[in-house]
Amino acid sequence: MMPKLDATHDPARRSWVEAANRADSDFPIQNLPWAVFTRAGEQPRGGIAIGDGIVDLKAASEARLFSGAAAETARAASAPVLNDAMALGARSAAALREQLSDLLRADGRERARLEARAATFLVSMQGAQLCLPVTVGAFTDFLSSIFHTKRMGRNNLPPSYKYQPIAYNSRASSVRIGGETIVRPKGEFRAEAGEVGYGPESSLDFELEMAAVIGPGNALGAPIPIAEAADHIFGYCLLNDWSARGIQRWESQPLGPFLGKSFCTSISPWIVTAEALAPFRAPAFKRDGDDPPPFSHLSDEADLKEGGLDINLEAFWRTAAMRSRGAAPTRVTRTNANALYWTFTQMVTHHTVNGCNLRPGDLIASGTVSGPTDDSRACIAELNGNGTMPLTIGEEKRLWLEDGDDVIFRARAERHGHVSIGFGECSGVIGPMVAG
Amino acid sequence: MMPKLDATHDPARRSWVEAANRADSDFPIQNLPWAVFTRAGEQPRGGIAIGDGIVDLKAASEARLFSGAAAETARAASAPVLNDAMALGARSAAALREQLSDLLRADGRERARLEARAATFLVSMQGAQLCLPVTVGAFTDFLSSIFHTKRMGRNNLPPSYKYQPIAYNSRASSVRIGGETIVRPKGEFRAEAGEVGYGPESSLDFELEMAAVIGPGNALGAPIPIAEAADHIFGYCLLNDWSARGIQRWESQPLGPFLGKSFCTSISPWIVTAEALAPFRAPAFKRDGDDPPPFSHLSDEADLKEGGLDINLEAFWRTAAMRSRGAAPTRVTRTNANALYWTFTQMVTHHTVNGCNLRPGDLIASGTVSGPTDDSRACIAELNGNGTMPLTIGEEKRLWLEDGDDVIFRARAERHGHVSIGFGECSGVIGPMVAG
Repeated sequence: MMPKLDATHDPARRSWVEAANRADSDFPIQNLPWAVFTRAGEQPRGGIAIGDGIVDLKAASEARLFSGAAAETARAASAPVLNDAMALGARSAAALREQLSDLLRADGRERARLEARAATFLVSMQGAQLCLPVTVGAFTDFLSSIFHTKRMGRNNLPPSYKYQPIAYNSRASSVRIGGETIVRPKGEFRAEAGEVGYGPESSLDFELEMAAVIGPGNALGAPIPIAEAADHIFGYCLLNDWSARGIQRWESQPLGPFLGKSFCTSISPWIVTAEALAPFRAPAFKRDGDDPPPFSHLSDEADLKEGGLDINLEAFWRTAAMRSRGAAPTRVTRTNANALYWTFTQMVTHHTVNGCNLRPGDLIASGTVSGPTDDSRACIAELNGNGTMPLTIGEEKRLWLEDGDDVIFRARAERHGHVSIGFGECSGVIGPMVAG
Repeated sequence: MMPKLDATHDPARRSWVEAANRADSDFPIQNLPWAVFTRAGEQPRGGIAIGDGIVDLKAASEARLFSGAAAETARAASAPVLNDAMALGARSAAALREQLSDLLRADGRERARLEARAATFLVSMQGAQLCLPVTVGAFTDFLSSIFHTKRMGRNNLPPSYKYQPIAYNSRASSVRIGGETIVRPKGEFRAEAGEVGYGPESSLDFELEMAAVIGPGNALGAPIPIAEAADHIFGYCLLNDWSARGIQRWESQPLGPFLGKSFCTSISPWIVTAEALAPFRAPAFKRDGDDPPPFSHLSDEADLKEGGLDINLEAFWRTAAMRSRGAAPTRVTRTNANALYWTFTQMVTHHTVNGCNLRPGDLIASGTVSGPTDDSRACIAELNGNGTMPLTIGEEKRLWLEDGDDVIFRARAERHGHVSIGFGECSGVIGPMVAG
């Protein structure tokens, strides 16, 4: 069932954590996203963001700040990864959200129980280091933007594109949270002149994506029906599917992308829960009249009505020179998740229709979230016409990412009558390969 | 470094476990493969096969049967999965092999220490249930047989085929040990007439493969040089890459196989160590004179000389009627791992050349191990001319696998002057999809 609006989404609700009430905060009381964090000498543990602070779920759990299903959830989220907490399902996460929202709201009767011991339970973001929030057992990457697919395929769509969400298994072992250096990969490629070469990738790209993080998941052999798919999405994060275009082009026949993607994938450290996004649901993509309707197992009235998500996504690019003189990054992409031809619930159902099992913490990525307009092209290959038109970044020209460049993704759900919520950042700076 | 011959390979060595000395035993004292097993009410733990018995590594470890690195290895292998033991590396596994071989050999001075307490340390295979031996963090499937690739591609090779080993990330969550029922997947396909359909897969296939199981592995950003690649292969098992050809054909453009493979993959429960296979090393595939030589990072004198493996592999097919009347399965494939165009060490190095990290327990599968001859075709699509020529199985005709059919893989390394060693079985029976 799609998450529903309740008191935790009330736009009038404000927090006694003042930084959460600023209009530009990514983390107002209506958001409450999850992460894993650590401080010097401490075991990593789950936390929930509020303004410029993090509620330490381990400390709060040990002090019995929560009760019932919320307490069970907080206890599970005290671990160094959130997989077990996500496995508990949407109702458990909602129980924690409800109690925590009451503890954090300015006019909450429960306020004092948390505020009085804020030094114990509320950690400053500045003093905390964020960690990979889940053990990533699987990372699946879809191709759900028809605009990206058309631009990359010179206006041709794969034959099954409108019949089913197309995807591939990508590499789970190299998923990292943003902020790390992205080591430029080496690999084989075919040069312009036709000869085959080996060396550092020259056409290094980003892909601006969103990923669903799986909650309970399913047993092998038991597909998830579309009407239940939303129950298996714990939340969403940003994902940068760094892409080595030369390696990818040369290797992809006939088995698809492999080393062109597996050198590193960055996700944002904060997981925005599906429930926090309830006010930002949108109709599924409106198909053309002559598009085939989805098969019944991929089709559902609720999904048609509110299977989409209205989330603004942006990509920024900055050169080393810009960084050293403190210049603002150049925004190169502004797009929206409602451009996706397939909904995340359709992706989840399709993924399991053959009996394949999803497990808690699995990542289901959208693919590049490009829209129809030029400014919504969400990877460099689209922006530069597949390597033919250099871009202006600050005062420099760029065809692809150079060593020292960094890329920053941001996203916000914004809708009239609701408090905007953000995803934080997903960033990465390119570095040269040192070994190998 | 490639594993070398030592006293544990001595063909004259025999065990006081009599069943290990039978010429047809898969598990003579020269083999000593690893598995995880359990008995009623017991926590699963690592074990090593000898004849018709399993040495219980947990019991042996707790009784301090081993010393030094062997003791450390046995302690790690007492866990319900072998990933941590494999992470210790080849030298640790070799130390355990050496001490255990001494304890098990008929003329060993150490013999009494194990034999006297055989009731505690030596478990009957019949009374034990085998389990998935590792937590499969990743399952990569290569396309290393040029004969399979040509037959499946109507004699065309992908452009990069002879320049690099081609692979895709397959699904790790649905890897199981043989013996389980394989649930026939549902999915979308394009029918002969061109219309798109949805339903149970009718072209269900097997693929006879070998998989390397990764030992220590590498850090992200630090490729494994070809000269060190053998140090990262703990051992090998059989793998059945069950394939839904209708789903696969319809979905694979442009991202490669996905749901056509992810409904289930079976591996053999026994992992034959790289060291046990030392007597069965073979030269790498002899390329045609006009084939391009591999790039230097994929090329190594030792690999050229002994990077291949001389292992006979067989596939058997049996219908439900044959099983109920106790008829022997029909052998449909007899092939050899030396047919692979790329060596496992080349696959490991290629996999990491972009910086991608491998982790202990990862599976690196060969792809279908077809050879040049008709009887070495190692999947049904090759055997039936891509669905055009029915096969005779027992007294029945078959185009593809039907519900109730089972498939059994066996493999043995056999070489003059050495004791043959086997891999045990990897089997699966097809069942209908019940849910979804």
